[in-house]
Amino acid sequence: MRKNKQVVLAARPRTVLKVTDFALQEVEVPPLGAGQYLIQNQYLSMDAGFRKWMNEGADDNYLKTMEIGSPVQSMILGHVIESRNSEFPEGTVVMGRTFWENFSVVGSEDFVTRLDHDGSLPLSEYVSTMGPTGMTAYFGFFDVGKPQAGEEVLVSAAGGAVGSIVGQLAKLTGCRTVGITSSDEKCAWLIDTLGYDAAINYNAPEGLDAQVKRELPNGFDIYFDNVGGSMLDVALQHMKEYARIVLCGAISQYDKMDRQTGIFNMWEFITKRATARGYMFTDYIEHYPAALEKIGGWVRTGKLKTVINTYHGIEEVPKAFCDMINGANRGKNIVEL
Amino acid sequence: MRKNKQVVLAARPRTVLKVTDFALQEVEVPPLGAGQYLIQNQYLSMDAGFRKWMNEGADDNYLKTMEIGSPVQSMILGHVIESRNSEFPEGTVVMGRTFWENFSVVGSEDFVTRLDHDGSLPLSEYVSTMGPTGMTAYFGFFDVGKPQAGEEVLVSAAGGAVGSIVGQLAKLTGCRTVGITSSDEKCAWLIDTLGYDAAINYNAPEGLDAQVKRELPNGFDIYFDNVGGSMLDVALQHMKEYARIVLCGAISQYDKMDRQTGIFNMWEFITKRATARGYMFTDYIEHYPAALEKIGGWVRTGKLKTVINTYHGIEEVPKAFCDMINGANRGKNIVEL
Repeated sequence: MRKNKQVVLAARPRTVLKVTDFALQEVEVPPLGAGQYLIQNQYLSMDAGFRKWMNEGADDNYLKTMEIGSPVQSMILGHVIESRNSEFPEGTVVMGRTFWENFSVVGSEDFVTRLDHDGSLPLSEYVSTMGPTGMTAYFGFFDVGKPQAGEEVLVSAAGGAVGSIVGQLAKLTGCRTVGITSSDEKCAWLIDTLGYDAAINYNAPEGLDAQVKRELPNGFDIYFDNVGGSMLDVALQHMKEYARIVLCGAISQYDKMDRQTGIFNMWEFITKRATARGYMFTDYIEHYPAALEKIGGWVRTGKLKTVINTYHGIEEVPKAFCDMINGANRGKNIVEL
Repeated sequence: MRKNKQVVLAARPRTVLKVTDFALQEVEVPPLGAGQYLIQNQYLSMDAGFRKWMNEGADDNYLKTMEIGSPVQSMILGHVIESRNSEFPEGTVVMGRTFWENFSVVGSEDFVTRLDHDGSLPLSEYVSTMGPTGMTAYFGFFDVGKPQAGEEVLVSAAGGAVGSIVGQLAKLTGCRTVGITSSDEKCAWLIDTLGYDAAINYNAPEGLDAQVKRELPNGFDIYFDNVGGSMLDVALQHMKEYARIVLCGAISQYDKMDRQTGIFNMWEFITKRATARGYMFTDYIEHYPAALEKIGGWVRTGKLKTVINTYHGIEEVPKAFCDMINGANRGKNIVEL
């Protein structure tokens, strides 16, 4: 039998996520059932959103609470190495949602799709700018944000996996961009490398509110929100009329599901005639080809930079994930197996 | 000179609004300047939204903080009795935003429009279902809420001026309607008189959350929010996927602008792919004729009931307004002068 290594949830995370909240286990890959196929995972994508379902009682319309001792769910990219499903023959490159593991057994009911690629870009692009992260940035910014050239865009977690792409998409659209991040060094990087027009260090003594007022004296048209909580609440005080709040993630909230930060400025939406909308990239599956053509064009011509941090081996998964959740990284964290 | 009686803001309201926060004053009506005209006000409309600008530091993009000693702003309906403006000759019936006063001097720069009416409905209809209140209900429900027949609609302040119309519009659209109000008596009235399918008394020992769960086990498609605060926060836990939150008012918040209730469930918007949108009826001015034709048809055929409480004389304005803010009324409060 083939051996599989998986990373399981070892303990319910308390406040700050730690690598010891996870554990490695070795199991046997079961034989394939009718209609199933076996994926050898090449890349695991570190996505902050999954953090939410590591909490007790996180069941919702989208996913169930992750069980202690069970492998952690993850977006993956891999190759079919054995198949009892004619739609996914041996050799097919696929991406989808399975687990933190070397091998995944899946069937037609699983959220896995064939990856169409022409070989002109490294496969790692398809777990970042050309993958779920890029799709999240693209549809959130364009479909939810509805940007116009000349508008002003504020992005939180601006140097993170999604934010680093959103800032660039906004510049490509002719918007003025202001990014929020956690240090002066990251601020310089946002401007120099990602092309943000201005950057805000929310840890600076001046405070977030004063800095937003300084950088966006007339407010913003779009706030692309990866953070939620008190950062969102401050942002709501700087909306222009008809502002759009793109509710993409709430990374500030996942670590403390039972003592979340309140939003006190909802009434601002009324006189500002503003909109807040949540979304999931999974809703846009039929629009991926058009988005990938557009993003692919920008990536190939160097107009859109992909920032990837590659970790190596299943053993590094907990660190790769914790680094992202705890804000230590720039761009997208992936694990190559 | 003609004498004018006005109701002015006498004190900054503290927590619960009181009639003694207002005072009556008599002033002379000034002579008309070029382009101005004089309105004899027949009806004053009691609108909760104005409460917000009675607070200290309430300046925003829409209105300035009301000054102590200055007349209180209000939607009015009246007749032009003297004019130096050819667009508004003597005898014109107008509605718009002036003040709590018997006479208003206005010019072209003011938010006042000619009222087109064929005399088939009493003028009081035009300060309720056919006026700003009706427009607020109509455009909020149809344009922001985007209802479909068969959907489930939750309305807060369901027996209030706007809510009492929204509930009926939702039934006319083929929706199932659940109204939230403050007593068992009002619940019975919501169902028997306004045609709500179910009603919730938020003061009942069972609590709001449990009652919403019971009446809307699958959640709602639309929450028409007149209240904001903790009631909104509870509602957010009962959204169906793709739910729409119509942010119309936040009456729970106006009385305590500096100690508002936090919203803790914003992250629900993400997995539910839900939308919250604020709006003002004033944005829809070019669509009023179409709306009035539709609403007028329903009113004339008895399909849409107007519920009006008429107070009499400028002296009753503070009571008419406080009764509304403090939830003592059913339907729309107006003052006939």
